[in-house]
Amino acid sequence: MSIEQTIREMAVQAKKAAHAVAILSTEQKNRVLGRMADALDAQKSYIQAENARDLVAGEAKGLAPAMLDRLQLSDKVMAAMIGGLRQVIALPDPVGEISDMGRRPSGITVGRMRIPLGVIGMIYESRPNVTVDAAALCLKAGNAILLRGGSEAIHSNLALAQVLQEALKAEKIDPAAIQVIPTTEREAITCLLQLEEQIDLIIPRGGEGLIRFVSENSRIPVLKHYKGVCHLFVDASARFDMALAIILNGKVQRPGVCNALETLLVHKDIAAAFLPLLAAELLAAGVEIRGCEQTCALVPAAKAATPADWPMEFLDLILAVKVVDDLDAAMAHIREYGSQHTEVIVTENYSHGQRFIREVDASAVMINASTRFADGGEFGLGAEIGISTTKLHAYGPMGLKELTTRKFIVYGDGQIRS
Amino acid sequence: MSIEQTIREMAVQAKKAAHAVAILSTEQKNRVLGRMADALDAQKSYIQAENARDLVAGEAKGLAPAMLDRLQLSDKVMAAMIGGLRQVIALPDPVGEISDMGRRPSGITVGRMRIPLGVIGMIYESRPNVTVDAAALCLKAGNAILLRGGSEAIHSNLALAQVLQEALKAEKIDPAAIQVIPTTEREAITCLLQLEEQIDLIIPRGGEGLIRFVSENSRIPVLKHYKGVCHLFVDASARFDMALAIILNGKVQRPGVCNALETLLVHKDIAAAFLPLLAAELLAAGVEIRGCEQTCALVPAAKAATPADWPMEFLDLILAVKVVDDLDAAMAHIREYGSQHTEVIVTENYSHGQRFIREVDASAVMINASTRFADGGEFGLGAEIGISTTKLHAYGPMGLKELTTRKFIVYGDGQIRS
Repeated sequence: MSIEQTIREMAVQAKKAAHAVAILSTEQKNRVLGRMADALDAQKSYIQAENARDLVAGEAKGLAPAMLDRLQLSDKVMAAMIGGLRQVIALPDPVGEISDMGRRPSGITVGRMRIPLGVIGMIYESRPNVTVDAAALCLKAGNAILLRGGSEAIHSNLALAQVLQEALKAEKIDPAAIQVIPTTEREAITCLLQLEEQIDLIIPRGGEGLIRFVSENSRIPVLKHYKGVCHLFVDASARFDMALAIILNGKVQRPGVCNALETLLVHKDIAAAFLPLLAAELLAAGVEIRGCEQTCALVPAAKAATPADWPMEFLDLILAVKVVDDLDAAMAHIREYGSQHTEVIVTENYSHGQRFIREVDASAVMINASTRFADGGEFGLGAEIGISTTKLHAYGPMGLKELTTRKFIVYGDGQIRS
Repeated sequence: MSIEQTIREMAVQAKKAAHAVAILSTEQKNRVLGRMADALDAQKSYIQAENARDLVAGEAKGLAPAMLDRLQLSDKVMAAMIGGLRQVIALPDPVGEISDMGRRPSGITVGRMRIPLGVIGMIYESRPNVTVDAAALCLKAGNAILLRGGSEAIHSNLALAQVLQEALKAEKIDPAAIQVIPTTEREAITCLLQLEEQIDLIIPRGGEGLIRFVSENSRIPVLKHYKGVCHLFVDASARFDMALAIILNGKVQRPGVCNALETLLVHKDIAAAFLPLLAAELLAAGVEIRGCEQTCALVPAAKAATPADWPMEFLDLILAVKVVDDLDAAMAHIREYGSQHTEVIVTENYSHGQRFIREVDASAVMINASTRFADGGEFGLGAEIGISTTKLHAYGPMGLKELTTRKFIVYGDGQIRS
């Protein structure tokens, strides 16, 4: 079979399985998830042996140590995967929820019932634990899933899928509900993205290049997230101690993630008092400051920012800093350079806070809190399958509910339309 | 300017206008909608004169009388458009609605705020009244809109847009919030569909060919609806009088629309008693029956159905009829041939009704009611911008809420993440 035929056949099988998975009871889904957790534990040495093959190949290929680290299914990562499965079991099942039910003037009763999306295609890089996390969330939401991980993790991903599929079979559930694409050819992705008859949603997770490729080649709806260029605006009325703590947390606590703080905007009225205090703390934490002209004048250690710094996701201990005239100037800067991920204002001014919350277009908008809270777990979604920075279907962290949709249901008593 | 440059410039202006429209108050939006209604009334003779140019050109081109009828902005159609605007004024404004607000363990308060989508691209055929209906709904939901109507309606659409834009200007709102693309070249659509940086959503309305073209060429998310192959299953326990009334209503009341009934499935235990009764009523109403073998044996007037009849949207006084073994066979037929529009069971059996509601995958699933109720107005959405038969973002009739999305909002008090 050609790659195209292989992928198509997998998708056809996934669609068939999706119908069966959609009508499983919550108890059935939780039971198989529990069995998966047990099986991952029982088969840890097999999985780690397959993972070792990927690690050896990765080393031979000269992968960077950070990449090898992300690839490794250590005991700790295995335990986290298994713990994640148990957390998914504990989450409420979104399927079957009925809402907005009411009688219409015609006499029919109309409402909405939450249902699974169907088949989800997940395209991701590196970390093999995504295989288990994503499969568990999709299954709990009643969906089938086709997984296409990075080529460097192929043995790990196939081993994990095998263990998950055995658990499905043991519960008499069609194993095609969770499938890992067994080829590392790039062509497999292109084929997958054409199957709009079989696949309902594509979720890419990885670098900007992968996400652009998926987005430009897909006929299937894509929930995507390019990057997180998160801003924080320190208003004239901000409490300095609060602003300092929130900025440090946003920049330093975990600089390599998408909800880290990248650009600071400071109201001109407090710049002279605030920036030297901040600079001392940032420099002590090893943060490089790239400032506008006014910032550099106030902070001798700052480097001059270039135009390339404003739209940049540094993912590193670097912070761009700009002095702005007022709230409107701050919001205009965010409109121009923001990535619709997370934007924060630190203020004691009620009206400014309300305007910022209402007017800033981002998937998460905050007053007086760290950008680092932009996360499915912190927002109460339970677990997160990704973050969407496009507005259709879901905007922001996506949990189980975002893996479902709602249909209309109608209870009549013989009504006809006149 | 090339067509590509023209379209891009319009989209850039629309995006700018979208920001302004997004933060208008409900009162401001209602005021401009009222002004538009008044202006359409005041400028009726200008609009009808431009419409006459389209009608003359259409006649010269040999458009069918039904097409010319749909193209005409008669006094009645004008009055309906103006009435539609007043109805949109009366609808509640979805923007700003806050929900799911609650305190998290970290101390932050997290909720969701409903916000506009941004810029919507509407691609439609024939009826120029869609220009006004769609513009009003998009504006009320805080969006800017780019409209691309059929080439045969170009003068009508441009005249309508001019009147609407004058109303925007009179209220000091950027007229780029409502724009009709002034060229009839097909290339304009292709260009529009590439502008993912400016346009958030594409809604095509028209024939299957147009919708496939849009879907296959768009980089922007598309909410689409190919066709309505609606089924009704008469269960063994159905009350015959109720089933007859619902079937007649579904097939005869307005056969040319997407929520008309196209295929009837009849439980084998009642086929011999029910089908002759039904056939008499259908034949009296001028309906052609295309039946399976068993149906033809029971109804001498029926023609033999061919395989092409089962997936067919007749949009005419034709009904495909098949005798099935049981509920499962009926649901399997719907799974194979349904278009995820509207599916109905007529039954007095509680368990069968509940299984049908839960298990059938369609945007509207009904018990004991006519398919013809599948409509935004009948479902209580107020007005409908279209029907989605794909599951992302919206499934089924789409009203004002479906022209919005939700962002996360966070109220903190200095919280940082540990």
